[in-house]
Amino acid sequence: MQLTEHASSLDELRKRYRAVRDFSETLCAPLTPEDCVVQSMPDVSPTRWHLAHTTWFFETFVLARQSDYSPHHPEYEYLFNSYYNSVGRQFPRPQRGLLTRPGRDEVLEYRRSIDTAIGQLLEDLPDELAGSVPTIIELGLHHEQQHQELILTDIKHVLSCNPLMPVYREATTDASPSHALDWVSFDGGIREIGHSGSGFAYDNESPRHEVLLQDFSLASRPVTAGDYIEFIEADGYRRPELWLSLGWAAVQQERWDAPLYWFEKDGDWWEFTLAGPRPVDRSAPVCHVSYFEADAYARWADARLPTEAEWEVACATQSAGNGHFVDELIERDAPVHPAGVSGASGVQQMLGDVWEWTASPYVAYPGYRPAAGALGEYNGKFMCNQYVLRGGSCATHSTHIRPTYRNFFPPEARWQFSGLRLARDGE
Amino acid sequence: MQLTEHASSLDELRKRYRAVRDFSETLCAPLTPEDCVVQSMPDVSPTRWHLAHTTWFFETFVLARQSDYSPHHPEYEYLFNSYYNSVGRQFPRPQRGLLTRPGRDEVLEYRRSIDTAIGQLLEDLPDELAGSVPTIIELGLHHEQQHQELILTDIKHVLSCNPLMPVYREATTDASPSHALDWVSFDGGIREIGHSGSGFAYDNESPRHEVLLQDFSLASRPVTAGDYIEFIEADGYRRPELWLSLGWAAVQQERWDAPLYWFEKDGDWWEFTLAGPRPVDRSAPVCHVSYFEADAYARWADARLPTEAEWEVACATQSAGNGHFVDELIERDAPVHPAGVSGASGVQQMLGDVWEWTASPYVAYPGYRPAAGALGEYNGKFMCNQYVLRGGSCATHSTHIRPTYRNFFPPEARWQFSGLRLARDGE
Amino acid sequence: MQLTEHASSLDELRKRYRAVRDFSETLCAPLTPEDCVVQSMPDVSPTRWHLAHTTWFFETFVLARQSDYSPHHPEYEYLFNSYYNSVGRQFPRPQRGLLTRPGRDEVLEYRRSIDTAIGQLLEDLPDELAGSVPTIIELGLHHEQQHQELILTDIKHVLSCNPLMPVYREATTDASPSHALDWVSFDGGIREIGHSGSGFAYDNESPRHEVLLQDFSLASRPVTAGDYIEFIEADGYRRPELWLSLGWAAVQQERWDAPLYWFEKDGDWWEFTLAGPRPVDRSAPVCHVSYFEADAYARWADARLPTEAEWEVACATQSAGNGHFVDELIERDAPVHPAGVSGASGVQQMLGDVWEWTASPYVAYPGYRPAAGALGEYNGKFMCNQYVLRGGSCATHSTHIRPTYRNFFPPEARWQFSGLRLARDGE
Amino acid sequence: MQLTEHASSLDELRKRYRAVRDFSETLCAPLTPEDCVVQSMPDVSPTRWHLAHTTWFFETFVLARQSDYSPHHPEYEYLFNSYYNSVGRQFPRPQRGLLTRPGRDEVLEYRRSIDTAIGQLLEDLPDELAGSVPTIIELGLHHEQQHQELILTDIKHVLSCNPLMPVYREATTDASPSHALDWVSFDGGIREIGHSGSGFAYDNESPRHEVLLQDFSLASRPVTAGDYIEFIEADGYRRPELWLSLGWAAVQQERWDAPLYWFEKDGDWWEFTLAGPRPVDRSAPVCHVSYFEADAYARWADARLPTEAEWEVACATQSAGNGHFVDELIERDAPVHPAGVSGASGVQQMLGDVWEWTASPYVAYPGYRPAAGALGEYNGKFMCNQYVLRGGSCATHSTHIRPTYRNFFPPEARWQFSGLRLARDGE
Repeated sequence: MQLTEHASSLDELRKRYRAVRDFSETLCAPLTPEDCVVQSMPDVSPTRWHLAHTTWFFETFVLARQSDYSPHHPEYEYLFNSYYNSVGRQFPRPQRGLLTRPGRDEVLEYRRSIDTAIGQLLEDLPDELAGSVPTIIELGLHHEQQHQELILTDIKHVLSCNPLMPVYREATTDASPSHALDWVSFDGGIREIGHSGSGFAYDNESPRHEVLLQDFSLASRPVTAGDYIEFIEADGYRRPELWLSLGWAAVQQERWDAPLYWFEKDGDWWEFTLAGPRPVDRSAPVCHVSYFEADAYARWADARLPTEAEWEVACATQSAGNGHFVDELIERDAPVHPAGVSGASGVQQMLGDVWEWTASPYVAYPGYRPAAGALGEYNGKFMCNQYVLRGGSCATHSTHIRPTYRNFFPPEARWQFSGLRLARDGE
Repeated sequence: MQLTEHASSLDELRKRYRAVRDFSETLCAPLTPEDCVVQSMPDVSPTRWHLAHTTWFFETFVLARQSDYSPHHPEYEYLFNSYYNSVGRQFPRPQRGLLTRPGRDEVLEYRRSIDTAIGQLLEDLPDELAGSVPTIIELGLHHEQQHQELILTDIKHVLSCNPLMPVYREATTDASPSHALDWVSFDGGIREIGHSGSGFAYDNESPRHEVLLQDFSLASRPVTAGDYIEFIEADGYRRPELWLSLGWAAVQQERWDAPLYWFEKDGDWWEFTLAGPRPVDRSAPVCHVSYFEADAYARWADARLPTEAEWEVACATQSAGNGHFVDELIERDAPVHPAGVSGASGVQQMLGDVWEWTASPYVAYPGYRPAAGALGEYNGKFMCNQYVLRGGSCATHSTHIRPTYRNFFPPEARWQFSGLRLARDGE
Repeated sequence: MQLTEHASSLDELRKRYRAVRDFSETLCAPLTPEDCVVQSMPDVSPTRWHLAHTTWFFETFVLARQSDYSPHHPEYEYLFNSYYNSVGRQFPRPQRGLLTRPGRDEVLEYRRSIDTAIGQLLEDLPDELAGSVPTIIELGLHHEQQHQELILTDIKHVLSCNPLMPVYREATTDASPSHALDWVSFDGGIREIGHSGSGFAYDNESPRHEVLLQDFSLASRPVTAGDYIEFIEADGYRRPELWLSLGWAAVQQERWDAPLYWFEKDGDWWEFTLAGPRPVDRSAPVCHVSYFEADAYARWADARLPTEAEWEVACATQSAGNGHFVDELIERDAPVHPAGVSGASGVQQMLGDVWEWTASPYVAYPGYRPAAGALGEYNGKFMCNQYVLRGGSCATHSTHIRPTYRNFFPPEARWQFSGLRLARDGE
Repeated sequence: MQLTEHASSLDELRKRYRAVRDFSETLCAPLTPEDCVVQSMPDVSPTRWHLAHTTWFFETFVLARQSDYSPHHPEYEYLFNSYYNSVGRQFPRPQRGLLTRPGRDEVLEYRRSIDTAIGQLLEDLPDELAGSVPTIIELGLHHEQQHQELILTDIKHVLSCNPLMPVYREATTDASPSHALDWVSFDGGIREIGHSGSGFAYDNESPRHEVLLQDFSLASRPVTAGDYIEFIEADGYRRPELWLSLGWAAVQQERWDAPLYWFEKDGDWWEFTLAGPRPVDRSAPVCHVSYFEADAYARWADARLPTEAEWEVACATQSAGNGHFVDELIERDAPVHPAGVSGASGVQQMLGDVWEWTASPYVAYPGYRPAAGALGEYNGKFMCNQYVLRGGSCATHSTHIRPTYRNFFPPEARWQFSGLRLARDGE
């Protein structure tokens, strides 16, 4: 990872460690033990697995650096390794939902145990670990924040499979204000993108480098559910000429005719949310669309998706109001769901609310070098058949996002809080 | 169903209802909420589903006969219908493991509620239901006892998928005595098989009818694990000439090289059991073999499987000692697992310990008529591509088995407690 | 195989050899080289493969018995072995359609070469082969006649996949006379079925043995297409209660709503035949139905399918007029397709026209022993998950059928010329 | 398409039409009718289909522009449409191998008929078609040249499935000279790539635009088979850290351990070629590797793949000797197979011999606009989950390649003549 040059003071790190670890458990509080064990599709992991795997990360990459460390449980290295071949074999991903043990209490005890050991280590950090441990812990906390978002997107998918449509968390509904779409123009030329400076960033955000942009314009807000309904009503899902070839195949095979979680009821569009079923809010950003749908919508709208460089340049040069993040929503007792914003000028809502699909396949930046050792598997090996998304969502923690952040998913993925913003050539 | 001619007195029925329903919950006592929700393969159902479905049976086929009945929950008819098209649509079987709600407590409350209603109904049974309700309740209790066996075979499969090899129930191990195989001969001629008389039987055991048998001999005991190890060591799994064509394809595709749950450790055969991993007991009947394996073993042993008529005639004419049943094992604190018997003369262990594959495809008896209405779907529609097994197992309740009982599974099924007994032509 | 006790004289055998081998090539005459190479589904084999495999049979089981025999081509043993594990490895069945070489001319040359060698062998048969060779050749000729039927059923399937609906063979259409259905009754009791005497039979027709039958009635003719249309119009394909559970699953998954090859055109039922598309002939036996459809039809008609023992007893005691066989049809320039018969009394059309599904799973007769050596793989290993069909079809050669003949296919198979005849309990 | 500004004179176009169309048939001359009908995997099309589809292209996009045109055959529009949704429905791609008719002669007649009509049209071209027809014909000829390459790659795959390893075309073997790898360095800066000028190019090569490059070096020649054997011997296929995550999954699932068509014989590497099996030529470029293998090799060699911009800039600034093209090879009676070159300085073999995988996902150039109408489906809709390959191969016609040409295949594709060339950052 592109870790901080000099780690935050150990005290601050301990505090942040505590806060991030606690927030994971806060997110799980509304769930029953049964909710936490099920895997509804290969992409989804059980909640309990997330709780254990994020703990495994600290055990494996921090605690096990101590020469005399003896593991919490001999099988956990295997059971909770996600994809690190350098660490060892992995329990097969599509079978994570078969593990009924360790149960929730045992997993919480595992967390307690590792947290205690990390606390002790930080209190009396040996010199030979002082260089590496703080930066790896910081990485581990960002890693855990990624899984916090997955805990939400995964449990939403699990609950959505149940005809009872269970509620994860009742919440006061935000009414979304309506907001007209404006076009904001940007000059081309040589620009810089990528991470620099002392804050945390993943390795895939580096090195900061020059890119050559043409003049372009960006929509002032994401595409809303109301915009998207127009696309549906214009037969968008029945016109092959709007779609990439693979996208059209997905439409046919999966019988897509609306975003994931949407359904019709008495002639209206409803959606399943973490607060249960509710009518689609037309002013909120459309969400749970695949890259294929984002791309088809843009073509239909006579526009295109922005490249990630355009997106980042726009984000860096604007100091626009943000959307919502999960920590704020929970604090305000609002639903974990994208919502409209009232702000009006400039490019709005780039951070928070919905991840925005870009037109950019996920590739290495020029000169990219993965981190050494097992942590080099964190990002680099996934640079194939995925697209970059930018900006975070309503399920992202506000301390986990930044303009250079590169998220990535395959073009057919829909279970993330993913939406889109339009772009156009020229000013 | 072939129900009892005159139902047992209502008092006895109430008592038996209580006992059977309680035993289901006894079986679930060692399980965590997480254990009860997972479905490890399409054939397996989650424990909680079994608990709910058996309750649904009483609600649907007994309580709902009352004109003013209002259902416990509007969605349960759909969620817990197994395969009764006449009742309505069914939640897809392979997705039963996706349902995290209703949780265990809600399901237990569902059981309580239906049990109370059944109790009240039996206390004051309206005349117009007096003819049907007792017989359907008796059917429902046998239905529940079938699911009690599935609770055990299914949870065994679920737990076996976990590298931690969890223990369902620690238990004092029975040492199996060794017992030589004798051949017991039977005269051919016209014999009668099938159910008659006043006791309970499923519809597929009727009508009692004549069959024409040739002289035959039957092994005095099931094939043991020790016998079966000889087959393995004689390359039984590598010699196509011993196998049915479909069986050989299964061996190749599934890479079978031993019964299900067996594994090698330090040169010895071990098996996963409900009491965790333990060394294979060579004197106990071999278990968890498919029809294909049973058939191949018999061919290798220069013998064959008995027909179901041979088996039933032999069982009816012998008053041999039985094997073990689940209720006895639990009472004695013994493992739920087949074990050897010490008895010595005659045909032993026909009932209990392991279901015995017969050579008979599962077909209707001459003159068979399925029960009228939805309950006609109980047995008849499954008469295709399955083989009959006889005799019950160590996971069967002792009050649920009889010589005429016809169990049936597809030839590739291995997750039941299924073994075999050899037969030969002539005396 | 149950081969003839004393082989027909060698002269007769040579003549019959010539005739059977020629007829295979007669059947292929209307086909292009391209037609002969394609495999439209795993069950189907390319025509050229049939021509080569039947030749391989004679080479492997007759010629290779000569100690000094050197094979026609070193790879043919592998390429054209169907399923004889005792002979050696087999080129994978689903990939037979990938072999573009040897081409048709090479295969015909292979046939010439083996025919010449067989001719020479029969002219001067060494004493040590005199006992085995004639019986194996007779078996090989019946084997070839089975493949002649498959050549027709397979090419029908291949051509049916082509929207051009090509014609295999233009032919004068037979008009089918209409014929009312009568019920013919038979007394129960102990009867004998199975092969005896000196004629040829496969091993699975032996030993002849006693069976115990109840009184039963048999329909005087097969179910006609007209009868079957009534079933369709009565929503037969939409009523789960009429179907076996596996059958209903097949209806749903395969979207069956009529026999294979039927399609609707301007409100009428048409079917694809070897003479191209033509309107369904309502008086002809319904054809290309699976066991599942036959069973559902019978249930709808308040009847059942006959057992194979009932069928054979009825066939043996009646001297009724037969249906049509492929050799007669080709001689008369009639389409290779089932047709109605004009006969009126007794049980009609048992042989020829359509194979009749019976209610009997394909199992060994009591005391059955497969032939020794590789030829023991001919029949026995397929005795699982298949049903017996009786009586031959319009694609069967008239010298290849007899009342004891047991054909067998899985219950979902529809590409054979398979129909049904109704039976009922009692007289 | 980016078509020529002013079409070549009609005379020249007629001549080129004749030459290209003839060359397709030249390529098919060595094939039997059976060879031409088989489809060995969904990606492969039967030879006869290629011959018909390229003809359909001229019929659909040129001849059918005439208002009074009546189609050659009413079903061909459906049968031979590859993927043009705007034209109409398409016969399913994976079933192309089921079509035994029209046979080869009919397809050749179809070609004759369309060629005649095109000839007549060009002789007397109506004014209203003078603007469009020549450019579409030129596009159709390049389209046909693409299919000429596919005819070779597809038939190679078909023949490779046959254990007889048939020879497409015996040929005098070229001995490949050995050639050391040098690194050639290039300065970074703003460069231009993409098509400009009057020659033919596909729409995806436009618009010509500026790119910003860093300094880089390029290998003087492609990676050879000998180089690649070192990778294999260094356990390249068993070290997950060398592979992209999807690549490693492919290695495991497909059990890759060498390039497609390679096999071991007596301790040496052999490969199946269009001239039959022959020992791997270590000096020739390695071929039939996927993007995953190219990428893993580069990582193992401490290098990377070039981007397509780097490749094009290098190709444009070098006037290096080319490799081999199919037309030259056939003329010289050499095998259609990559071979080494003797040239020594500069960047060699960029055009011809093997397509070179680049690191660039296939995306639209900035400002890209697909052609209007159905021809807009030619390239644009495939811009997802594919990588760009550059430079043509030994199966490409020499008149069909240029430095700006962008070929594209999914990262797992191996049946094309695809290899790689290494690149490095900096000079």
